[in-house]
Amino acid sequence: MHLVAVGGSDAGISAALRAREVDLAAEVTVVAADAYPNFSICGIPYYVSGEVPRWQNLAHRTRADLEAAGLSLRLDTTARRIDVAARKLLVTGPDGADDVISYDQLVIGTGALPVRPPIDGLGELGPRDGVHLLHSMGDTFTLMHTLEETAPASAVIVGAGYIGLEMADALATRGLLVTQIEQLPEVLPTVDPELGALVHAELTRREVKVLTGTTVRAVSKAPAGRDGRLEVTAVTAAGEPVTCAADVVLVVVGVRPDTELAVSAGADLGPRGAIAVDRMMRTGLPHVFAAGDCVATYHRLLGDTYLPLGTTAHKQGRVAGENAFGGHREFAGSLGTQVVKIFGQAAARTGLREHEAKAAGFDPLTVASEADDHKAYYPGSHRIAMRFTGDRQTGRLLGIQLFGSKDAEIAKRVDIAATAIFHSMTVDGLSDLDLSYTPPLGSPWDAIQIGAQDWIRVGTATERSC
Amino acid sequence: MHLVAVGGSDAGISAALRAREVDLAAEVTVVAADAYPNFSICGIPYYVSGEVPRWQNLAHRTRADLEAAGLSLRLDTTARRIDVAARKLLVTGPDGADDVISYDQLVIGTGALPVRPPIDGLGELGPRDGVHLLHSMGDTFTLMHTLEETAPASAVIVGAGYIGLEMADALATRGLLVTQIEQLPEVLPTVDPELGALVHAELTRREVKVLTGTTVRAVSKAPAGRDGRLEVTAVTAAGEPVTCAADVVLVVVGVRPDTELAVSAGADLGPRGAIAVDRMMRTGLPHVFAAGDCVATYHRLLGDTYLPLGTTAHKQGRVAGENAFGGHREFAGSLGTQVVKIFGQAAARTGLREHEAKAAGFDPLTVASEADDHKAYYPGSHRIAMRFTGDRQTGRLLGIQLFGSKDAEIAKRVDIAATAIFHSMTVDGLSDLDLSYTPPLGSPWDAIQIGAQDWIRVGTATERSC
Repeated sequence: MHLVAVGGSDAGISAALRAREVDLAAEVTVVAADAYPNFSICGIPYYVSGEVPRWQNLAHRTRADLEAAGLSLRLDTTARRIDVAARKLLVTGPDGADDVISYDQLVIGTGALPVRPPIDGLGELGPRDGVHLLHSMGDTFTLMHTLEETAPASAVIVGAGYIGLEMADALATRGLLVTQIEQLPEVLPTVDPELGALVHAELTRREVKVLTGTTVRAVSKAPAGRDGRLEVTAVTAAGEPVTCAADVVLVVVGVRPDTELAVSAGADLGPRGAIAVDRMMRTGLPHVFAAGDCVATYHRLLGDTYLPLGTTAHKQGRVAGENAFGGHREFAGSLGTQVVKIFGQAAARTGLREHEAKAAGFDPLTVASEADDHKAYYPGSHRIAMRFTGDRQTGRLLGIQLFGSKDAEIAKRVDIAATAIFHSMTVDGLSDLDLSYTPPLGSPWDAIQIGAQDWIRVGTATERSC
Repeated sequence: MHLVAVGGSDAGISAALRAREVDLAAEVTVVAADAYPNFSICGIPYYVSGEVPRWQNLAHRTRADLEAAGLSLRLDTTARRIDVAARKLLVTGPDGADDVISYDQLVIGTGALPVRPPIDGLGELGPRDGVHLLHSMGDTFTLMHTLEETAPASAVIVGAGYIGLEMADALATRGLLVTQIEQLPEVLPTVDPELGALVHAELTRREVKVLTGTTVRAVSKAPAGRDGRLEVTAVTAAGEPVTCAADVVLVVVGVRPDTELAVSAGADLGPRGAIAVDRMMRTGLPHVFAAGDCVATYHRLLGDTYLPLGTTAHKQGRVAGENAFGGHREFAGSLGTQVVKIFGQAAARTGLREHEAKAAGFDPLTVASEADDHKAYYPGSHRIAMRFTGDRQTGRLLGIQLFGSKDAEIAKRVDIAATAIFHSMTVDGLSDLDLSYTPPLGSPWDAIQIGAQDWIRVGTATERSC
C-alpha cells in the first residue's frame, strides 16, 4: 500500500503520519512544492518579530523526524496532474524533470493561496520594491531579506485580519512605524465590532496607526525626496482620499483554496470554490482524499463552508490518513474556534456570531458582559470582555467571543465553550459544568459561567418585556 | 414567602441570592454564625501570605452588596434547632438571647468543620501557644495575630492537602521556615503520587522541608533554650521517631460535615456522615433543603459521595434557592474538578483516578504523558505533565490530572476535560474537539489532545500485546 500526500503543510503531513501510525508497513510519500515540510506557518509573525530567533525553530518536526517516522519526502517537487484511473501522479522535481509516482491512495493537501486584491501597482511592484505578500516560508525569507537589507523605518499593512494583526504586532516589535489599513469598518472583522474596537484600542496604544473603513487603491514608488520608498493611496468610506508613505507594504487580505490539481482531475467544488469532500474527506474521485485549506469544511452548526484553519487541517489530514488505510473516521466538524494575540491582548471566538446564526436559521440573542479571569483580590487579575450568542427559542449556546489580556486564559476559556457547543449545550447548562477554582487562577463561577448567567438574565428580561 | 438560609458562606449566600433572582418579592434571611458573610474562605492563604493586603478584600460581596440584593442578614447568630412541623428556626443572637424565625422554606448551609487529628497536646495547646487550626475568618484573625505579634521564624504544617500546601506557600512567602508533614506517602494525595512528587519537588525548591509518610504524634511546648516555642514529635512509616522545632504549628488535615442542626431535626445522613439530599437538594424533611460542605454530593461518575468544594457549594446553593421558590432544577453533579497553586506551579484534576475508577466498576487504564502549553519555539513555553485515565472497554474518558507552571493554563485545560467528561466523551473523542490555536497560546493539537492521543496509542499497544 502506497499513500501519496500532496502538500508538505498541516494536512499533508498529518495524513502521512496518521497513515504510518495506522499501518506501520505503509509506504508513505509526501510531495511538497517547497523545501520546508511541516513548518508552522502560523509562527511566521514571531520569526519576523525576532521573538523566534531562527527560522528552523518553526519546524513542527525536522526533516529527520519525518523520515524517522517513515515518510519519504519529495521536496521542491510540484504535483502537476493526477491520472485518477491509473492512480498516478505526475510531478516536476527540483531538477525540472517530470516524474510519475504511482499510488494506492492519494491525499490532496495543496492548501491555499494568498488573495491579491485589486490594487493598482501590485502587479508591477514586488519584494525588490518593498511590496510583499506573506504566506509561505519562501515569502518569509523574501520579507526578512527586505527587513534586514533595507532597514525600513515604516510599513503599511493592508488587511487587519488575524495575519494582518499579528504582522502589525511583529513589525512594531521590530521597531517599524506601522500603519494598518482595513477596508471594513473595524479591525478583526471575524469578531463583533464591539470587540474589534478593543483590539483597535490596543493597536493604537502600541502606536500602530489604524485606518478602518479605508480601501487601498494603489501602491507606487514614492517620488524622490519623500519619506518612505513607497506611497499607498487609499479612499475612506466617505470617499476622502488618503495617502500613506512607507518603506514596506505588506498585503495580507486572506486566502483562497488552491484547487488547480484537484479541479484538473475532475474533483467537484463546494463553497468558495474549495474542493468538495464528504466527512470521511473523500473527494468523490476514487482513491483521492483531500484535506486542509484547499477543501470545503464541514461546520457543526453551518454545514459545508470555507474556513481555512491550521487546527482543522491537522484534524482533516489525520482523518484522511486513517481512512486511506481502511479507517471509517469522520471529521467531526469545525466550530471556527480561533484565537489571536495582539501585543498584550488576545481575542478569541468559537461558534457563531449573531448575523451568522440568523443566516443559519437560528433566533439568536447576543449579550455582552464582563468578568474577572480570577478573583480580583488576588494580584494580577484582568477583566475579560465577553459576548455570548444563544438561541432564544431553544436556549442553545451558539457562540462566544472573548477579549482580554493574553494572560487571562482567553484561549482555553473559548475552548471550554467550544467543547460545550460541540455537545449542543444550552447557555444555561454552562452553569452546571464542574470547573476548577482557586483564587489565583479562577473564580467559583468561571468567567464563562458568569457570561452565561448574564445571557440568561437578559434573555429572561427580554421575554418578560414582550 | 420567606426563605431562611442557615450559613453565610457559599451555599447559604448562593441560595439566598438565587431566591431573590427567581422571585424579586421573596423575603430572604441569612443566618450566619459569624460576622463575615460571603467571604472567600479559599482566599485566606493569600491574605496570610500578604498578597491580599486587607482581609476585607476577601469578601465576594460586601454586607452592603448583600443587603442591596435584598438579603436580610442575621450575623453572629447561631442556628440552634429546627422545628420542622412548625417551620420555625430557633437561633441565638449576638446578645446571647434566643429568638425564633419563621420560614416557608429553609436551606441548611452549615458547611464543614476542621478535623482534629489524634495528636497529643492538641487539646491543651491553642493559639496563644502558637497552635492553630484554620477554617474560618475567626481562625484567620487568630493566626494573623500570632504571626504579627510573635513574629515566628518557623512553622510546622500538619497536612499536605490543598490548604496545607497553600499555607506552606503562604508562610514561606511571609519568610517563615516551613516544615510540612504528611502522613501519606506523598504530598497532595488527591492526585497520583507521580504528580504529587512534582509538587513535592516544587516545595523543596522553595525551601519548604517536606516529611512524607510521617505521622504527627504530639505537640508540646519546647523546653526553654531550644529553637522554637513548640516541639512536634512524629514517627515515620518505618517507625523512626522525628522531632521538629517550630514557633507555630498549623493543623490542616481536612474537614468533616457540620450536620448537628440537620441531625437534630431528623435529617438522614449519607456518605461520610454528610446530610443526604436528592439532586434537587431536598433533605427529605418537608421544606428543608441543604447544600454545600455539609451535604453528601452527587458525583456524575460515582453517585453520592462526600466532596466539599466551594464551586459545588455555589452550584448546590443556587439549585436549592431556585427550587425553594418552585423551581425544578437538579444539581448536575460534581466531577471533583480542583486546582491548587503551589508557588509557581499548579496541579489540577477532574474525574476519577485509576483506583477510584476501579472501585466504581470501570476497567481503567492510566497513561502519563507530557506536552507544551504552547509552541515551544515561542518564548515562555512550559511543559505540562499529564495523566489520563480512561476505560479500556468503552474508551470513555474518566479523568485527567495535570501539573505544570501556574502560567500554563492548567486550570482551564482541566476544565475542557471536565466539560468533555460531563458529556461522557471518549478519550479518542477529545481529538475531535475544535480548540483554539495561536503559537503564543497553544498548539494545533492542544496539550490535552496530545495526552488523549498518547492514551490511545498505549491502549492500542496494550490490546495488541494481549
